[in-house]
Amino acid sequence: MRKPGRHFLQIPGPTNVPDRILRAMDLPTMDHRSPAFGELGRRVLDGMQSVFRTREPVYIYPASGTGAWEAALVNTLSPGDRVLMFETGQFATLWKSMAARLGLDAVFIQGDWRAGADPQAIESQLREDRNHDIKAVCVVHNETSTGCVTQIPEIRKALDAAGHPALLMVDTISSLASIDYRHDEWGVDVTVGGSQKGLMLPPGLSFNAVSAKAREAAKTAQLPRSFWSWEEMDGPNATGYFPYTPATNLLYGLAEAVDMLHEEGLDAVFARHARHGEATRKAVAAWGLEVLCQEPRHYSGSLTAVMMPQGHSADAFRKVVADTFDMSLGNGLGKVSDKVFRIGHLGDFNDLMLAGTLSGIEMGLQLAGVPHQQGGVQAALNHLAETPQNSVGDVTPQNKRRTG
Amino acid sequence: MRKPGRHFLQIPGPTNVPDRILRAMDLPTMDHRSPAFGELGRRVLDGMQSVFRTREPVYIYPASGTGAWEAALVNTLSPGDRVLMFETGQFATLWKSMAARLGLDAVFIQGDWRAGADPQAIESQLREDRNHDIKAVCVVHNETSTGCVTQIPEIRKALDAAGHPALLMVDTISSLASIDYRHDEWGVDVTVGGSQKGLMLPPGLSFNAVSAKAREAAKTAQLPRSFWSWEEMDGPNATGYFPYTPATNLLYGLAEAVDMLHEEGLDAVFARHARHGEATRKAVAAWGLEVLCQEPRHYSGSLTAVMMPQGHSADAFRKVVADTFDMSLGNGLGKVSDKVFRIGHLGDFNDLMLAGTLSGIEMGLQLAGVPHQQGGVQAALNHLAETPQNSVGDVTPQNKRRTG
Amino acid sequence: MRKPGRHFLQIPGPTNVPDRILRAMDLPTMDHRSPAFGELGRRVLDGMQSVFRTREPVYIYPASGTGAWEAALVNTLSPGDRVLMFETGQFATLWKSMAARLGLDAVFIQGDWRAGADPQAIESQLREDRNHDIKAVCVVHNETSTGCVTQIPEIRKALDAAGHPALLMVDTISSLASIDYRHDEWGVDVTVGGSQKGLMLPPGLSFNAVSAKAREAAKTAQLPRSFWSWEEMDGPNATGYFPYTPATNLLYGLAEAVDMLHEEGLDAVFARHARHGEATRKAVAAWGLEVLCQEPRHYSGSLTAVMMPQGHSADAFRKVVADTFDMSLGNGLGKVSDKVFRIGHLGDFNDLMLAGTLSGIEMGLQLAGVPHQQGGVQAALNHLAETPQNSVGDVTPQNKRRTG
Amino acid sequence: MRKPGRHFLQIPGPTNVPDRILRAMDLPTMDHRSPAFGELGRRVLDGMQSVFRTREPVYIYPASGTGAWEAALVNTLSPGDRVLMFETGQFATLWKSMAARLGLDAVFIQGDWRAGADPQAIESQLREDRNHDIKAVCVVHNETSTGCVTQIPEIRKALDAAGHPALLMVDTISSLASIDYRHDEWGVDVTVGGSQKGLMLPPGLSFNAVSAKAREAAKTAQLPRSFWSWEEMDGPNATGYFPYTPATNLLYGLAEAVDMLHEEGLDAVFARHARHGEATRKAVAAWGLEVLCQEPRHYSGSLTAVMMPQGHSADAFRKVVADTFDMSLGNGLGKVSDKVFRIGHLGDFNDLMLAGTLSGIEMGLQLAGVPHQQGGVQAALNHLAETPQNSVGDVTPQNKRRTG
Repeated sequence: MRKPGRHFLQIPGPTNVPDRILRAMDLPTMDHRSPAFGELGRRVLDGMQSVFRTREPVYIYPASGTGAWEAALVNTLSPGDRVLMFETGQFATLWKSMAARLGLDAVFIQGDWRAGADPQAIESQLREDRNHDIKAVCVVHNETSTGCVTQIPEIRKALDAAGHPALLMVDTISSLASIDYRHDEWGVDVTVGGSQKGLMLPPGLSFNAVSAKAREAAKTAQLPRSFWSWEEMDGPNATGYFPYTPATNLLYGLAEAVDMLHEEGLDAVFARHARHGEATRKAVAAWGLEVLCQEPRHYSGSLTAVMMPQGHSADAFRKVVADTFDMSLGNGLGKVSDKVFRIGHLGDFNDLMLAGTLSGIEMGLQLAGVPHQQGGVQAALNHLAETPQNSVGDVTPQNKRRTG
Repeated sequence: MRKPGRHFLQIPGPTNVPDRILRAMDLPTMDHRSPAFGELGRRVLDGMQSVFRTREPVYIYPASGTGAWEAALVNTLSPGDRVLMFETGQFATLWKSMAARLGLDAVFIQGDWRAGADPQAIESQLREDRNHDIKAVCVVHNETSTGCVTQIPEIRKALDAAGHPALLMVDTISSLASIDYRHDEWGVDVTVGGSQKGLMLPPGLSFNAVSAKAREAAKTAQLPRSFWSWEEMDGPNATGYFPYTPATNLLYGLAEAVDMLHEEGLDAVFARHARHGEATRKAVAAWGLEVLCQEPRHYSGSLTAVMMPQGHSADAFRKVVADTFDMSLGNGLGKVSDKVFRIGHLGDFNDLMLAGTLSGIEMGLQLAGVPHQQGGVQAALNHLAETPQNSVGDVTPQNKRRTG
Repeated sequence: MRKPGRHFLQIPGPTNVPDRILRAMDLPTMDHRSPAFGELGRRVLDGMQSVFRTREPVYIYPASGTGAWEAALVNTLSPGDRVLMFETGQFATLWKSMAARLGLDAVFIQGDWRAGADPQAIESQLREDRNHDIKAVCVVHNETSTGCVTQIPEIRKALDAAGHPALLMVDTISSLASIDYRHDEWGVDVTVGGSQKGLMLPPGLSFNAVSAKAREAAKTAQLPRSFWSWEEMDGPNATGYFPYTPATNLLYGLAEAVDMLHEEGLDAVFARHARHGEATRKAVAAWGLEVLCQEPRHYSGSLTAVMMPQGHSADAFRKVVADTFDMSLGNGLGKVSDKVFRIGHLGDFNDLMLAGTLSGIEMGLQLAGVPHQQGGVQAALNHLAETPQNSVGDVTPQNKRRTG
Repeated sequence: MRKPGRHFLQIPGPTNVPDRILRAMDLPTMDHRSPAFGELGRRVLDGMQSVFRTREPVYIYPASGTGAWEAALVNTLSPGDRVLMFETGQFATLWKSMAARLGLDAVFIQGDWRAGADPQAIESQLREDRNHDIKAVCVVHNETSTGCVTQIPEIRKALDAAGHPALLMVDTISSLASIDYRHDEWGVDVTVGGSQKGLMLPPGLSFNAVSAKAREAAKTAQLPRSFWSWEEMDGPNATGYFPYTPATNLLYGLAEAVDMLHEEGLDAVFARHARHGEATRKAVAAWGLEVLCQEPRHYSGSLTAVMMPQGHSADAFRKVVADTFDMSLGNGLGKVSDKVFRIGHLGDFNDLMLAGTLSGIEMGLQLAGVPHQQGGVQAALNHLAETPQNSVGDVTPQNKRRTG
């Protein structure tokens, strides 16, 4: 049976791709060795530096985000190297498993999935590592499985306080272009990003922003690499080209995405996400439910993970919402499987889409027989109305944006 | 400044065109004299008969809806002919003005814009017309300016009761494919439709469904006509062609629209619109505001017109909503200019889109300082959750629909 | 069976709609009463003035081209008015039939379909009309059925020489934006245009460019009109709006089309069409076939009609081409049905597309057993290579154009 | 300056992406964990088995083709393993360099770039390898840099004749879905493919078709791997899912591409490419130029590399063609840089597009002052007309294909 109206894709990525980006990609593939391609290439390479807030090179892979995790590791490390990682949730766990599979010695600081990485635990491990066996500290900025944000400047400070030379690597897959992030200012060596979240693109592109220190490390790193190799990129990238066939149509979309982010303003983008996170948490509180993230300083603007009351299945609830209201919510992953559901409020999103999303959840809780109190939507609306955004003088619908 | 997320186009048409239809139109124009075009032509001509619920011919104009009003009149009437029309609202008034401009003697039964056409008033006028000077009775099925639905079977009964031979002409521009309508069963002679409402297309196509009696009248009707002439259509239409260049790409979209309506099922489409109308009125009542339509039997499933409290500008309110929440609401037209706003809940629409729409209104009322009570959204959600739809076993997002 | 590669749509309109225009139309329909719509409206209204080369108003109809013929007549004339028309071909004949159907007294100067309108014949008729019963002279600029161009300045001169006050009306449906045309400079009163030829859009929009004299005539013209009425347009058009729902998505495309024409430059557009016409005629000559147009001064840049050798069916030939090479050629219309085929070389077209087109014809002639000599393609290539265009310094593929 | 008409993208990939595929990708990204995604996933996984002509698993990477080269190596081999490769041209050379970078011992049999791989040279090397140090033989099926096809069954026979247990790995990036290929029947262990050539998609997807023997080898292979790991794929793939976020929108396009290939029929697709290769070579011969491939049995249906006369720059010629005729031709790579140009005639392509392509080359040769004889286009047209394809009874333009 046809489901009328738009699907609400409220998983924490892939996100709702705006028409402007879909249409930018819906054009003939061009010759990747033509002069026009070089212009496009430089445009997206420059653009991504502005998004990562870096003057260092950004490498763009024609591959989805998991690949950029691998790129960060294989370019900088050698077999058996020790890396320190922090269990913020499922994605930190997967990155750790990848490190192990690649032959690294991954030390994993355990966490309870209810906060970001703990800088003190990291500092303490680093201080103990007198021989500097640890070659890299890897943390996830925004844990997509929990909705907890690690404060990267605090992690940087932990390394500095310990006087430890390890590289700092950060996964920003679900925070880039949604939550404030500053590659250079925060002293990160490798930042990993992907296309399908705050950048509002379909999956298929991923990124490494790389410090001079990391590029130096690459010179001696022994892990075998070819597809992911940074050094192959530098030459062609200088004039906007790539060492092998790039994902041209996704690059069309990326150029458009960067334009759109700057039209709105990165700070406005971050504020929008933060405000939607706050409104969502007010709804959760009014329902009498609990947010997975226990540390208010670590609340995420990208997504909110909500704990189900004891004895109730998150997946059964999500199925009711999907079947009745044509909305996809994120499932609980790993340790919190079936115990939480996740609300994505990132990407190309606005107040009325959030109101629709929370309405679907509130009605779904009722239909699925999940104990809760009404009033979550109302609480969110009150917050949104008290903090109105977008107070500009003129209606600017979809088409105008593109041609304006 | 870029406004993030999707625009909410909640005027009572044009409506939110689904991606499936936009993409169907986004293909090269074909040769309108090729064999493949003939297949497309018959497909849409047959399809529109199913939508009008008629076995009589449907004529498709490469022109927007106002043109189909003119087509209905010029094909059947002669200069100076008397037509009886009923002032249900602004669109009835415009159709009457058109009739007068075309040289017809338009008799206009006054109405207060708060109900559909009154069958007794019509019957009474017809009874008085002993000479049968009245050649046609013209009513608007769903008054887009007021949200009041005329009960067409009652109008048919009025003509029959009066034993009057006038043609019955009905404007279904904002009801076709949204509110139950039956051209044959209800004994209508000319039904006028347009593409940009329940058919979910952009504007640019319009329709006449025509009874044998109306086609007979066309043989002697003296109003000059060429572009709108039905008789030019019959020959080419038989094999799926048109007497002059058709709006090919809109026809691609129309073929897709008819498929989509039948995938959902016309009765399900009507029930969906009725339920959304009911939820909307519950919201309006909870806000303590008044719906323009005073006759519950005439409530519209397509749109709801809401009266502003005395002394408050509907247009100022709409501007706040547009500027703050990127939503277009319909303005008050003619007599009710600035006194009402109109909520379109027709076309490709679902529960969460309605929830977002009503949320934008409730927050807008607050920001614009319009006296009201909170709780409209909550009242609507309660209604929607008590009457859940779409309870199918499987999520079927956008792409699946198209290729499935 | 699937036919691989692109269809060659080489009828003289609708033409190959470029991706840029299809994509511009593939966006959500906007509120036609919003501020952003007003901007779009003024943009296309101003843009169309530049295309018609006029400072007079241009009226845009949400209707295909035949409607704009009707608009020209009903706005300016009264029942029984005499109009002088010239039989340049099938479209002149159809316009004449329309005039008759609308109750006008259409005087038709016969032609042999092998040249444009004859100014002397027109002047002579006007001189005889001492009472000035003739209210309008109507000619087709580029006869789509024959590929003969009427020299409009000569027609203007004929009216002036006869001292006759009749309005001059010109159909530019298949010449606008393909062949040089100047509404103001040439003293035309009503110019009729359509969207699906040189403007590179799908069918569904049409135009009247209107002189002050024609607007003055409209004040007393008695033919009934409402949908087509110019006077309803002026008020809303002033701020970019329309008196009834416009064909919004086609207007998105029109805005893009006007931009594209000016990026190339109108004079370059005209030169390109003329050069392609010349190359085509060289091919026809090399094949030993005859071009329908006998008057070199009247050769068309939009299309070339080619006469079949005696005893050979043009339609059988066209079917071979369609079936074997997936190319649509124009059929012979009316008097020349099955005797000519027409090659459209207008719209978004270039040298290699023309080479492919002529190659399909040359191979089709061979496969269909039509007597001819080889070498047509070669002759065309020689002409194209001797007169190279587009000699710019840089490749600028599809995507660059859009975003550049 | 705008260049009118369609760009001719006649490099040997990326190829001209058909509208049907672009439009299939131009839809909202779906939840990659939803039931509907599982259906899509199985559909493309099954579909790719039919394209590779295998009943073995096919792994789909959200990465461009170079990645699938790496996947083939890292899944099956251990550091220091010897691989035997054959220098068919630039891509064989690049694959060899990759192997070396990944720590393999790549033995490279030299070739002159004018034929496919030599089975005798391979057999001889294998016979000498008494200890079976060679773990894999890697050949390129269609060398994109030269237009020479290696006969894979002969290579298989060479391994068998030598009684050598090495894995056979084949790169089909520019032959898959263009030139006959049979993974199972030909006894290949790993076949590498990409999306942007015969599959008619943009770049961004790549493939490994994998024999049981190769999967067995993977169990002991020691090269580190995670992103490329086959074993992670099997579990999720069984129900249509992937171990990490897939390139969803490219998968939409892939599903459409597989449908299109089967609508035409794979054998018809291969025959079409072969015929276009033959017509192209006839043109080259008529120009008096030489095809790079010297071995007629190795001629490619995907592309033709043409040698420039001594003292003439291929790149200068290509620039003339690009600037004057808006066509991209492939450049000479590596050893033949500036000495050859390459004509891509693969993907979504037909006779008239080929005629346009060859016309652009013939005119370009003239404009660039390259010594040649006229008549290449004529020679190709003669071949095409003597061997007509697509002789079906009905025109079936673009739109019909999609909706029919």
